[in-house]
Amino acid sequence: MDPQITQLQKEAAERPDVIGLAGGLPADELLPRDEVGRALAEVTASREDALQYGWPEGIEQVRDWIVTRLARRGATIPADRVIITAGAQQALSIAGTILKGTAIRVGDATYPGALDAFRRAGAIPQARDADVAYAMTGVANPIGRALALEPARLYIADEAYTELRFDGHVPRPLVADHPAWHIGTISKTIAPGLRVGWLIPPAHHHDEALEIKAATDLQTASITQAALGRMLQTLDYDALVARARTEYTRRADALVAALRAHVPVSFAEPEGGFSIWATTDLAGDELAFLRTALDEGVMVDPGSLFQVAPGETIAMRLSFSSAPPERIDEAARRLGRALDRFRRRC
Amino acid sequence: MDPQITQLQKEAAERPDVIGLAGGLPADELLPRDEVGRALAEVTASREDALQYGWPEGIEQVRDWIVTRLARRGATIPADRVIITAGAQQALSIAGTILKGTAIRVGDATYPGALDAFRRAGAIPQARDADVAYAMTGVANPIGRALALEPARLYIADEAYTELRFDGHVPRPLVADHPAWHIGTISKTIAPGLRVGWLIPPAHHHDEALEIKAATDLQTASITQAALGRMLQTLDYDALVARARTEYTRRADALVAALRAHVPVSFAEPEGGFSIWATTDLAGDELAFLRTALDEGVMVDPGSLFQVAPGETIAMRLSFSSAPPERIDEAARRLGRALDRFRRRC
Repeated sequence: MDPQITQLQKEAAERPDVIGLAGGLPADELLPRDEVGRALAEVTASREDALQYGWPEGIEQVRDWIVTRLARRGATIPADRVIITAGAQQALSIAGTILKGTAIRVGDATYPGALDAFRRAGAIPQARDADVAYAMTGVANPIGRALALEPARLYIADEAYTELRFDGHVPRPLVADHPAWHIGTISKTIAPGLRVGWLIPPAHHHDEALEIKAATDLQTASITQAALGRMLQTLDYDALVARARTEYTRRADALVAALRAHVPVSFAEPEGGFSIWATTDLAGDELAFLRTALDEGVMVDPGSLFQVAPGETIAMRLSFSSAPPERIDEAARRLGRALDRFRRRC
Repeated sequence: MDPQITQLQKEAAERPDVIGLAGGLPADELLPRDEVGRALAEVTASREDALQYGWPEGIEQVRDWIVTRLARRGATIPADRVIITAGAQQALSIAGTILKGTAIRVGDATYPGALDAFRRAGAIPQARDADVAYAMTGVANPIGRALALEPARLYIADEAYTELRFDGHVPRPLVADHPAWHIGTISKTIAPGLRVGWLIPPAHHHDEALEIKAATDLQTASITQAALGRMLQTLDYDALVARARTEYTRRADALVAALRAHVPVSFAEPEGGFSIWATTDLAGDELAFLRTALDEGVMVDPGSLFQVAPGETIAMRLSFSSAPPERIDEAARRLGRALDRFRRRC
């Protein structure tokens, strides 16, 4: 990432006067803090293996939970095909490593971490014209909507937001019907700070994927896996997801209304997830625009991060997920002022 | 790793009748379990950022602690050069990625994870004849001794065991006087299951290393970093290390005595760390030898894992660190019987 963008992001995060529409973080207040704390304390006291080295594929308890949920949705996969990863990001990185040299279709705007992971690993993300496709099923980032599934010979199916469709219509997993790398995470619902995700590689790539995982970091943290395993025995995960859907719907509605009222951008109403993809007809220097936004006291994610080939005009991701709901309207007013100032400057 | 070896390792780990001299794990009973549990519970309750996404370089509190300890040992390094990694393994993997295509001198027997990390990343580990050197300073794995530092233009200095010299003579960090990638971890003293290590790349490689870290897994788990940061404020780390040294010395002495009494292998007395490197004059199939050992109820790490070019004769790493001390003599007797059976079979 452009170090100047990182610098602005850090400045924004440290200034309490700035309202953040950047980052794509889950809402702190929706994370099951008490349950996580209790589970961490319990497994540290009761499970010697929670502090020890473990196997690279991760613990059975969590892998069993993953395949049980997938089976409910129509994909029957044995637990020994699952590799627990350090978040979905590491799953993308491992897939990219094995797909080195392969063109991966990512569309016009996609998750920047996927672009980074694929590029670093030597795979080639491109907007279109490739028969391997990166697909964020159910809810794509940054657009917050389901994208039409175009044909591909192989999918990298990233389910980071799939369960967070506002209508609760969680689609059948791609891996049930197509050759696919299946990727999931608890970062959007339980806690990103645990860094637990998972990868189900195509069967013939499993052993190589596991070797990469082991060579890269030996294993995902035993303590966070053990705590997650413990929580999942008692936590009503469906209820947790349902509460999250309700609250994120409310925030999305607030941002949509505020954008319509105050901000001259084009966007599609989100169907789920954490964010809206907003475009403008303003050409110009994106960094200058970001600085203007920050001057006005609002931070967004610059559009170039999401695009293989950044466009001529200013675009941005606006996250409603972690913005204080009562400040969303004010955030939009500030963004409107920033765009206005930027337009006059151009 | 050879899947047949992995299979035997898993079998050994699951059989309570098998005494493990394999694995190179820290002793469960030396890990500060109560302190870890308390710190995890406290930061989960009190720090919102413990469950959230964080920056790829890791938290300041931990990076400050690392550079303070290094400064005490003669290496003055600003905290912003430190990258918190998922254990030392990820630090090796990142170094290997930037050293892609470079020959790295590793000596005759070294840490298998380093061989895996370097090879996977596209670097080229070789026993000798390279001017970049992988050096486990103070205590090398598997030999459990300091190896003479041969000249190199660049070192990858892995301090996994450096503080665990039995004599407490912790050497000056290589990075104080040489171009070096500096690598450390709390896996041998506090808990490997937290997966916290660190990397200090040469200054001109810092930004690229950080980009690789971010592309690979975004960041090391916030929760384990926060808990570690909290612990380090109150924990007497030097006292913890001193207790570990005392206990590992006792176990090393027990294994040395037992090997001398019961096992026809060559080895050098360890000066620190977790293990002894034992060689034999027996040629033959290593897997068959491992199976014989397992039949006798003892497990070791096969020598081929540690060698760039495995030799003709059976060699092995014998870890005293996590073997129950009262069973070390019996473990050696079993190993002696296994070698005897294997010799007669040859």
